[in-house]
Amino acid sequence: MFIAINYITCSEDYRERFESLMSSRAGLIDKMAGFQRMKVLRPKKSGERYLIVSEWDSESAFKAWTKSEAFAEGHRRGFADLKQAEERGEKPPMSSEFQTYEILTR
Amino acid sequence: MFIAINYITCSEDYRERFESLMSSRAGLIDKMAGFQRMKVLRPKKSGERYLIVSEWDSESAFKAWTKSEAFAEGHRRGFADLKQAEERGEKPPMSSEFQTYEILTR
Repeated sequence: MFIAINYITCSEDYRERFESLMSSRAGLIDKMAGFQRMKVLRPKKSGERYLIVSEWDSESAFKAWTKSEAFAEGHRRGFADLKQAEERGEKPPMSSEFQTYEILTR
Repeated sequence: MFIAINYITCSEDYRERFESLMSSRAGLIDKMAGFQRMKVLRPKKSGERYLIVSEWDSESAFKAWTKSEAFAEGHRRGFADLKQAEERGEKPPMSSEFQTYEILTR
């Protein structure tokens, strides 16, 4: 199994929007070959990062998702928010960092 | 549901020992009330942190574990390594940081 975690840093006033985007996600990832499941984790301590955790059959299945049209479509609203902030000369309201893992043990 | 992640920073020469400790864990956590499951994630990129992810019925179930005798017993070998490093005047071979989460969405 292969696990990807996207660590999301949100500005304080973007958190509500971020949560709304995640809660109304299109679900396109769920239909990808090799996708198993995902969870979005909200930190209990404010100011900490959100985690988008997705589990896959293999690394290649995950990579195929990041290069797919479905990935671009699934991130369309978030990417538009970033672009609008940039056009207004503002700092990005969120940033993300991917890390990938394998299961050592349970 | 309540999720605790223990982020583990390991020195390069302690990784093998850390992996061996985790792979031969006593399994005491599995018997705690409110425990659901755990996974230990090994980073694909060297130098990144390991994640010990545990899922619980509630925050109180998790807190009861961290205060239990089983917790002390389950961490005995790792704590001994830290103590020995200290006695030799060496830097700790590992350090950990707990963060806790709830599930925003799936």
